[in-house]
Amino acid sequence: MLTLYTWDTTTGRKPIILLEEIGLPYEIRPVDLEAGAQHALEFRALNPLERIPVLVDDDAGTIFESNAILWHLATKTGQFIGEGQESLQVMQWLFVQGGSVAHRLGTYNLLRGRLADPQAPELVRHRAEAGRVLEVVEALLTGRRYFAGQYSVADIAFLPQLRREMAEAEHTGCFPALRAWLERCMARPAVAKGFTLPIVATA
Amino acid sequence: MLTLYTWDTTTGRKPIILLEEIGLPYEIRPVDLEAGAQHALEFRALNPLERIPVLVDDDAGTIFESNAILWHLATKTGQFIGEGQESLQVMQWLFVQGGSVAHRLGTYNLLRGRLADPQAPELVRHRAEAGRVLEVVEALLTGRRYFAGQYSVADIAFLPQLRREMAEAEHTGCFPALRAWLERCMARPAVAKGFTLPIVATA
Repeated sequence: MLTLYTWDTTTGRKPIILLEEIGLPYEIRPVDLEAGAQHALEFRALNPLERIPVLVDDDAGTIFESNAILWHLATKTGQFIGEGQESLQVMQWLFVQGGSVAHRLGTYNLLRGRLADPQAPELVRHRAEAGRVLEVVEALLTGRRYFAGQYSVADIAFLPQLRREMAEAEHTGCFPALRAWLERCMARPAVAKGFTLPIVATA
Repeated sequence: MLTLYTWDTTTGRKPIILLEEIGLPYEIRPVDLEAGAQHALEFRALNPLERIPVLVDDDAGTIFESNAILWHLATKTGQFIGEGQESLQVMQWLFVQGGSVAHRLGTYNLLRGRLADPQAPELVRHRAEAGRVLEVVEALLTGRRYFAGQYSVADIAFLPQLRREMAEAEHTGCFPALRAWLERCMARPAVAKGFTLPIVATA
């Protein structure tokens, strides 16, 4: 059995998308971050870092950190992991996304919601860092359809944050290759379902 | 042939430690970050994100992001990767370190060097976040000798940042299990060499 502890955030949606893609049965346990459920003793026993998502796989144990869950499910099922040397690229992009990209886009998004003045120096600096990330992604996706050749968990890792970022008015008309990639991914039924599935207890 | 583009930083030391552990021949190409060498066209062709380290493996291609390089070299050689279900834990801790831990400890270290007033609100907030990470690591290493059972690339991923943090006067006498783990790792000849090897061109 696969049990996913998650919530409606960019990282919390990633494993749902992949689980819908691979079609294995799974159960959802909502962890209400607004109510502070991630700090409860029961949840800290699963992940002492108090972060979602967490996957409990009866065959393999407890795994936390969203991209580690993606990698585990992909290797477990042999799906969306890339073939041959592509697999190395998939793994690399998972680390890139979970490291500098998640941090830069996440910090910029946080400050954008918090600082009223669009010319505040801190916001300007983080806008430049986020912009640099988007330019690198745009250049990459200009030359290929997906992050590592074929559609893979690398795309799923990048999807939620890039989708949210592209919905911002400031990017209207920009990043055509990134937008084409986003449409390509969103056209997949599992991706569309992964973004809209209500996060409620399924058992 | 393995060619490592790196510099003397916490992430830049990680693959050197692992390469010394596994004993494969490799060459070093220094990327002088103070001189801005990471922005040079030649380096951007290797990693458009302009970050070290980058590994060029003639058998597998170009790989960037330090923990992706660790995972690649460990799986390539079958060393320091954990056995059975331990391997899943190794991979998980690589993602945790490269994600929230690197970010929290790195930001705190940056602000500590920049802000003169130890009670500056921003510094106090980031000290609490870094402290939370250190407490989780201390609790983990109280129950086991290494992050994932046996010594693995998960330990190598955590080593440089935790070693730097433990050298700070504010932690004197704290985190005994973390310090015992640090001594255990530093007693390994490859680790000691990995931290002291001059980063100069070797070919």
